[in-house]
Amino acid sequence: MKPKRNIPIESWFLGPKAENADILEQLLIEAFRDHVFWRRNFHPEDETVIPEQKKREAEFQDSISLLKDEFYHLLSNLKRDVPVYSPRYIGHMLGDQLIPAVLGYFATLLYNPNNVTSDVSPFTTRLEVEVGRQLSDLVGYGNDPTPWGHITSGGTVANFEGIWAARNLKYLPLSMKRFAFDIGVDISVNLPDGKRVSIQKASKWEVLNLRADEIVCIKERLIAAYTGKTGMSADEASVDIEGRLERYTISTLGIQAFFAREGIKETGVVLTSATAHYSLGKIAQVLGIGIDNLVPIDVDSRFRMDIKKLEEALSSCLNKSIPVIAVIPICGSSEEGSVDPIDEVISLRKRFEERYGMTFLVHIDAAYGGYVRTMFVDKNGRRRSRKAILGETGEWPGEEVYRSFMAFNMADSIAMDPHKLGYIPYPAGAIIFRNGKTRDIISSKAHYVFHEDGREDSYIGRYIFEGSKPGASASACWLAHRVVPLNSSGYGAIIGRSIKGAMMLYEGLGRISKGLRRSGILLMRLEGPDINIVCFLVNHKNNRSLKVMNSINNSIYNRLKFNPRIPIQDHNFIISKTELTFDKYKDVMAPYLKKLGILPGSFTDSPKEEVQAERVAILRCTVMNPWFGSGSSKGGRYDDQFVSELKMIIKQVIRNFS
Amino acid sequence: MKPKRNIPIESWFLGPKAENADILEQLLIEAFRDHVFWRRNFHPEDETVIPEQKKREAEFQDSISLLKDEFYHLLSNLKRDVPVYSPRYIGHMLGDQLIPAVLGYFATLLYNPNNVTSDVSPFTTRLEVEVGRQLSDLVGYGNDPTPWGHITSGGTVANFEGIWAARNLKYLPLSMKRFAFDIGVDISVNLPDGKRVSIQKASKWEVLNLRADEIVCIKERLIAAYTGKTGMSADEASVDIEGRLERYTISTLGIQAFFAREGIKETGVVLTSATAHYSLGKIAQVLGIGIDNLVPIDVDSRFRMDIKKLEEALSSCLNKSIPVIAVIPICGSSEEGSVDPIDEVISLRKRFEERYGMTFLVHIDAAYGGYVRTMFVDKNGRRRSRKAILGETGEWPGEEVYRSFMAFNMADSIAMDPHKLGYIPYPAGAIIFRNGKTRDIISSKAHYVFHEDGREDSYIGRYIFEGSKPGASASACWLAHRVVPLNSSGYGAIIGRSIKGAMMLYEGLGRISKGLRRSGILLMRLEGPDINIVCFLVNHKNNRSLKVMNSINNSIYNRLKFNPRIPIQDHNFIISKTELTFDKYKDVMAPYLKKLGILPGSFTDSPKEEVQAERVAILRCTVMNPWFGSGSSKGGRYDDQFVSELKMIIKQVIRNFS
Repeated sequence: MKPKRNIPIESWFLGPKAENADILEQLLIEAFRDHVFWRRNFHPEDETVIPEQKKREAEFQDSISLLKDEFYHLLSNLKRDVPVYSPRYIGHMLGDQLIPAVLGYFATLLYNPNNVTSDVSPFTTRLEVEVGRQLSDLVGYGNDPTPWGHITSGGTVANFEGIWAARNLKYLPLSMKRFAFDIGVDISVNLPDGKRVSIQKASKWEVLNLRADEIVCIKERLIAAYTGKTGMSADEASVDIEGRLERYTISTLGIQAFFAREGIKETGVVLTSATAHYSLGKIAQVLGIGIDNLVPIDVDSRFRMDIKKLEEALSSCLNKSIPVIAVIPICGSSEEGSVDPIDEVISLRKRFEERYGMTFLVHIDAAYGGYVRTMFVDKNGRRRSRKAILGETGEWPGEEVYRSFMAFNMADSIAMDPHKLGYIPYPAGAIIFRNGKTRDIISSKAHYVFHEDGREDSYIGRYIFEGSKPGASASACWLAHRVVPLNSSGYGAIIGRSIKGAMMLYEGLGRISKGLRRSGILLMRLEGPDINIVCFLVNHKNNRSLKVMNSINNSIYNRLKFNPRIPIQDHNFIISKTELTFDKYKDVMAPYLKKLGILPGSFTDSPKEEVQAERVAILRCTVMNPWFGSGSSKGGRYDDQFVSELKMIIKQVIRNFS
Repeated sequence: MKPKRNIPIESWFLGPKAENADILEQLLIEAFRDHVFWRRNFHPEDETVIPEQKKREAEFQDSISLLKDEFYHLLSNLKRDVPVYSPRYIGHMLGDQLIPAVLGYFATLLYNPNNVTSDVSPFTTRLEVEVGRQLSDLVGYGNDPTPWGHITSGGTVANFEGIWAARNLKYLPLSMKRFAFDIGVDISVNLPDGKRVSIQKASKWEVLNLRADEIVCIKERLIAAYTGKTGMSADEASVDIEGRLERYTISTLGIQAFFAREGIKETGVVLTSATAHYSLGKIAQVLGIGIDNLVPIDVDSRFRMDIKKLEEALSSCLNKSIPVIAVIPICGSSEEGSVDPIDEVISLRKRFEERYGMTFLVHIDAAYGGYVRTMFVDKNGRRRSRKAILGETGEWPGEEVYRSFMAFNMADSIAMDPHKLGYIPYPAGAIIFRNGKTRDIISSKAHYVFHEDGREDSYIGRYIFEGSKPGASASACWLAHRVVPLNSSGYGAIIGRSIKGAMMLYEGLGRISKGLRRSGILLMRLEGPDINIVCFLVNHKNNRSLKVMNSINNSIYNRLKFNPRIPIQDHNFIISKTELTFDKYKDVMAPYLKKLGILPGSFTDSPKEEVQAERVAILRCTVMNPWFGSGSSKGGRYDDQFVSELKMIIKQVIRNFS
């Protein structure tokens, strides 16, 4: 039997004490000098343009002095930054960066390639395409259809591209129907309930309810039919149709003219979880969908999308003939870290397809939770059993969370941010499409950018929203994924530890809540955690006012927040907070508030007077650091120390309120 | 008299031979060690989580070996990257990076702050706000109204935000009109022709033609009127109106429902130059405006927007009651580097406002050309005379270009990319709004992000499209702007040299064209350069076929392009190319082609057979390097060497075609 090998997490980070400074410094210098020698190797016969004599001139020296002065000013002020690398930081979604990510970023920064096209990034464009494949493999997408993924500036642009593609895909068949009519051809389309109809005879509702894989195939059928009719070659027909079909799309006509022509009154909607990140609202705005048509589905007591409510919303859309552009489950909500039941969303879609011929795209916003999937894959790329994972983390994952992660591969697109649980520096978001042909729906071209090597992947800018983009991000992701595998022996181990830390924190909070209760203080945790975010709130047992409870929690937060006005050394632990609003969370809050002694109705009786009180302040801990539950300081383990300190702070705060 | 000081350009770049490697290396190491010590200074009592003993374990050592192997693989392959720092690179819009930019980026990368909010970027958020102000000052925006600018991931997102804001602003008064009616108040609005009308009595066309400054003020007037009517306090009225007005906007309703309700048939258009970057098309698509409604205005023989054609287009919109959302002049077109007559666009707007009561936003796409404005400002922030600039560069700028840059401050918004002529690493675009209140039109909020210090600027994510974003970009821009001033003694000197290099190249091409003509070869330059991009094309005097001419130019390009399959040392000079299409450039191409001997009509007679020939391949040189026209190699000055080599290549290529 082979001895069990330890997973070398310690070699992957610089460390809270910069323990690996020697290794990182050596390689940083190596990268820099290597770059320097590269410059000198290009046309050695060229004369220097900065002769040493020049460097001795007063103006040169003055300029270097200015550089140093300003640089030291920057370095000094960076010392006031947030120590996100420390196990003591459990605030926002930020942690330490992986050594390979920093090295990959820095080495490439010196060359500054632009991944808009391989013309100006011959190597890093390939790395980006490879990162896309790595992430596609991670989420379980296969090879048929061929998936497509790329790096974005962040989660907003990643989700934006997913929804943009969904909007365009949803309405494309309407354009195709009209186009087919105008050129006098007919083709058959497969409805999601298994029926097959002529596109000419299909109703508008039917063509607005085709499956994604079907939609991207219709064009090929149109070309075949057109070839048959005109006698053109397939290539000619393709060019011809491509150009003419474009004239019918929402992209070309604009939303206003498109719908005026189609005479469709019902506005398409996007259904998402009430926990959705506020950026989905921005996206609905810019895409012309409108906030009103980004419909939040209520969540259950664990802040997961209530699948019954989703079903009701879908039924309502069905009855009113409202097209559903997409359903967006959240994997790792920003406020609570909750994971929506993705598997149930997929099952529900199947049911609606089979029973009612209604369908929609499923896009997962896994900006935060995406990399957690690494815990579900072993080093041979096989799915791990829930039992195997439980063996490492104790009580995680619950059955629902497990099933949700297992259903990733059924979604049409997934946004997941390397710069969150990928431990990569900013900027690095990512979007992956299950069917790579989707990218053609949103593609464009520039004449001054070429990809003469014939590989269409070499001109990424064509398929994405952004243009110029750092090749350095691709290197950072790529090198990190090479050194820290995207499975349970790599990222899964880091994230597993962070989840274990969160579980220990959750338990610790439970422990101190018993002691506090004896002092008349109520500490209530939001049920969880689904990943590694733990939320809780505190009240005095005699307080019935929400406003006062909010003040209590804000006071606790003020003792544990990052405060730029005090030295960072004076921060023992750093947490974050959020505010849950009644309009968003409705009934979910009631049982929590009841248990906390807040009178039902106290927050709705007089909304005008107590606008402030329509929000519930919640304390929030994001445990991204793998050493929070294992590392130790003189006072013991960090999680233990934290709950002890918290207990003390709570007592002090409550004393002031009594 | 003070002795004239040399501008220390040599101290700002690493240099083609990495001449300043010593300085940069020293400061890079300083930044790294400084960061290391910072980590150790946070809770010194904490135990190390990576003990030295651990580092000796086999798994740890294996992991470091893997890191090194993969890292060296990356370093090796980066050697195949494009030598954009060299004066020999005159291809795409890429040059060397400024030393302060690399230092600022790297130092901050180690801390990895997130500029979405100062919660996680206490220092770099301030730097970003300062960069916004620096750029606002540069373009000549004053303090009334207060401008607002920030960094984006690139030019696409910058232009996108400008057009997004323009779309929302344009239609907001319709929402306000309806809202005012519903709450039973009336206010007066100032029409651009000086008239003042009640918003209730104003026609839809009139409210769709209000000036930007007027639009952002209406809300305040609404609040005042509402306060008067209801007796609410101004604060209450503000909160109340804010929430209710939102329900009427295009952002909330979505484009389809908004226009269905307003019953407006005419689709708003955006007018831009035919030279516009393809990303404006993407933007029109995603914003629901539609490519059809992004109307290209023909350009003149210098590839500048033809102001007569713009006037015709505006008149046509006026006659048809088509709202003009924005006019977008281009400053530094991607293909030709041309500069549209911004001053004339502004004058035309004034005329349309005064005569016809019609107006529109002006957004400048100065993604490339924006930083050229530094040549027009002296170190005391005063405008420089054209004569003063001519004294440095010779024949640049022409009167039209000069006036265009002088009119920057009249535009409503400007996109300008630090990662282009700002010599900053990717990613760094920027958008600046003349009236900072515009940001409220596109803002949103998140409950888990706070800015308790009360300065609203500290939560940038609220006002922009993107969310998480690298504080490192802000540091890079800020440090660069501190060390290399945004005026003629800083950036202006670098860019001035690059323009001078372009002028010398332009002249050199003129010189060799005479010699080539004697060999029966025609070399024709596109008139220019407006900035530092020089385009030309070549033909044999007996050739009448466009297809053959394209082949000739493609063959020349193949000898001068960056080819990743051959060692970079085998590249003497690297240029780029583009293709001008007839549908885009129409009549502009005819005189050029005529002079090149291409028969008029040869490209339109048989479009079907010669689809290929509907494009004209053009050779393109972007001179961003300040040493192209001054540095030297053994063979002499780079510009001289380049034209000599070009001449030789042209002769060889033509020989093969004869």
